[in-house]
Amino acid sequence: MPRVSPDHLQARRRQILDGARACFARHGYEGATVRRLEETTGLSRGAIFHHFKDKESLFLALAEDDAGRMADVVAEQGLVQVMRNLLADPGSDGGEMPEADWLGTRLEVSRRLRTDADFRLRWAQRSEQLTNATKARLKWQERAGNLRDDVDVDVLTAYLELVLEGLVSHLAMGLPADDLGPVLDLVEESVRRHRGP
Amino acid sequence: MPRVSPDHLQARRRQILDGARACFARHGYEGATVRRLEETTGLSRGAIFHHFKDKESLFLALAEDDAGRMADVVAEQGLVQVMRNLLADPGSDGGEMPEADWLGTRLEVSRRLRTDADFRLRWAQRSEQLTNATKARLKWQERAGNLRDDVDVDVLTAYLELVLEGLVSHLAMGLPADDLGPVLDLVEESVRRHRGP
Repeated sequence: MPRVSPDHLQARRRQILDGARACFARHGYEGATVRRLEETTGLSRGAIFHHFKDKESLFLALAEDDAGRMADVVAEQGLVQVMRNLLADPGSDGGEMPEADWLGTRLEVSRRLRTDADFRLRWAQRSEQLTNATKARLKWQERAGNLRDDVDVDVLTAYLELVLEGLVSHLAMGLPADDLGPVLDLVEESVRRHRGP
Repeated sequence: MPRVSPDHLQARRRQILDGARACFARHGYEGATVRRLEETTGLSRGAIFHHFKDKESLFLALAEDDAGRMADVVAEQGLVQVMRNLLADPGSDGGEMPEADWLGTRLEVSRRLRTDADFRLRWAQRSEQLTNATKARLKWQERAGNLRDDVDVDVLTAYLELVLEGLVSHLAMGLPADDLGPVLDLVEESVRRHRGP
């Protein structure tokens, strides 16, 4: 057997996650059959399940990977900017922006959270990344004097996450979103420090 | 044939809607079979479909009825209070509060909007009730001098509806909601007029 370098393993894992992301986004969790996963990843089922124990593990790894990439965007730009990016390009398939990929995975996570109690338990341990990144970003803004100081950072974090959930749901339902820019302005302004008149 | 009074027709229609609401909430649209609708309404399929052309029409009538009842609550108490009521008692089955019933129907509407393009078209013509009630309430608050005057009422309406969508999605996913009271305080405060310091 040839020896496989860690870089190669990492690249193969990435190839599987990227193919699986497109497959889950297009067909949903149940519709992402092993045959379709083979097609979108360009790998055999043997190769896929060498890296991931089963489809559930693959999906959780993907959701975790996406949440991590979004946490990076949040850390740099804040959650409101993430929402603006979603508005700008909600449905692009395989685009450059992590938000567009992430929306597909997030919708599938939402659906399974509603319908699958086992999944809810497994996901609870992994869903903290975005919350933590949002909170860290807000604390940084707080230290910079940009944040309102009359509301706890935990409340502001939960507020932004609730609006994000609304936006994800709104986009998922195919409702018109072209009037939501000023709404996000209002959301952003309502976590900011109000300087004196 | 005995003649049937309008009051009797209205009562029968109400009986069907109330039974169907419980059935759709418990089993979802697909799971609400004719047999189950007979059980929860206490009426035969002949009686049910004398009043409603088919299951789709029954569901749309129910969703419209619920939206109308919620619009009444919004007109009296505002959309933020509706959200507070949802938080206080999201899952009560057959409770006194219209919010608890409405959540079940609303979730089913959300799911079908995501998955059924035909339904999306039919629903678009009926979903304006809550928006209109919210906007009317905000305009009333505006005239009373309680509303911020630097943001358009349409934007404030879309903002409150987006937060409501987030809350509905949050509750549907079974996520913890006991920390959301202060978040709704923030939402309410951010549409209010800020009186000078």
